[in-house]
Amino acid sequence: MGSTTLAYIAGFLDGDGSIFFQIIKRKDYLRKFQIRCSIAFYQKTRYAEILQWLKDYSGAGYIRHRKTGISDYTVVEPHEVGRILSLLLPYVRLKKKHAILGLQILQKLESAKSKEDFLKICKLVDKFGKINYSKKRTMTYKVVKDYFKNKSLPP
Amino acid sequence: MGSTTLAYIAGFLDGDGSIFFQIIKRKDYLRKFQIRCSIAFYQKTRYAEILQWLKDYSGAGYIRHRKTGISDYTVVEPHEVGRILSLLLPYVRLKKKHAILGLQILQKLESAKSKEDFLKICKLVDKFGKINYSKKRTMTYKVVKDYFKNKSLPP
Repeated sequence: MGSTTLAYIAGFLDGDGSIFFQIIKRKDYLRKFQIRCSIAFYQKTRYAEILQWLKDYSGAGYIRHRKTGISDYTVVEPHEVGRILSLLLPYVRLKKKHAILGLQILQKLESAKSKEDFLKICKLVDKFGKINYSKKRTMTYKVVKDYFKNKSLPP
Repeated sequence: MGSTTLAYIAGFLDGDGSIFFQIIKRKDYLRKFQIRCSIAFYQKTRYAEILQWLKDYSGAGYIRHRKTGISDYTVVEPHEVGRILSLLLPYVRLKKKHAILGLQILQKLESAKSKEDFLKICKLVDKFGKINYSKKRTMTYKVVKDYFKNKSLPP
């Protein structure tokens, strides 16, 4: 991929995009929690063509058109999020910290084997929430730790 | 200037920036109207550092911090707007039409000598308003043309 195209996408992401990492309660998961990640780009629906271009270029994710007149292009598959963050890392500025920490979380997720490993990742997700100034987070490291303490789950 | 840096700035502008051309009534102007142009970049005030970087990089314009928690970095000097548009032109995507038409207007402004020349530029500014989906424009080619018809101004 061309470096100026990647730099352009990094600028677009810094200008009005977002990177998220969250802990989500999932009854159907072995450890009852999922680490959810996403990269999203936003634009007025009338200019949604640029989101389609981004989607075609990256080859992953989906586009949603909201009733508010805003559309978004979002990628949630962890390996795709990781691939995109790696490609944009040399060019992002405002979200450099987010990209580095996000890649760290994704890397640890791949090799996580125990509840302890998972808890360490939850701590990093808490850290991510802080650099993202997230205010509404209720699912935190502490919640998962307390849950693990009280439930008998596989190690 | 590095091509990846310019591509990054173009992406930032496409993501959440704006390019404006407007006709403004100015009593102190020879022709009583001014063509005002601007390039602006927006960001939450907590991330205003990136706007400062843009300002330092381009060497023009000013930063404002609004009470809404949003800051903007704006350039209004025509020759600086022209310089920045020329530099970003190869990399902008969403605002390519805006950049091309903007440069055309600035070029014509420099060589405009007569009221007729100025009116032609006003027509281009109307066109700019259309590609920008501007709804509140009251100062248009027609207003200027009617004004010129009724007042005795220098040719």
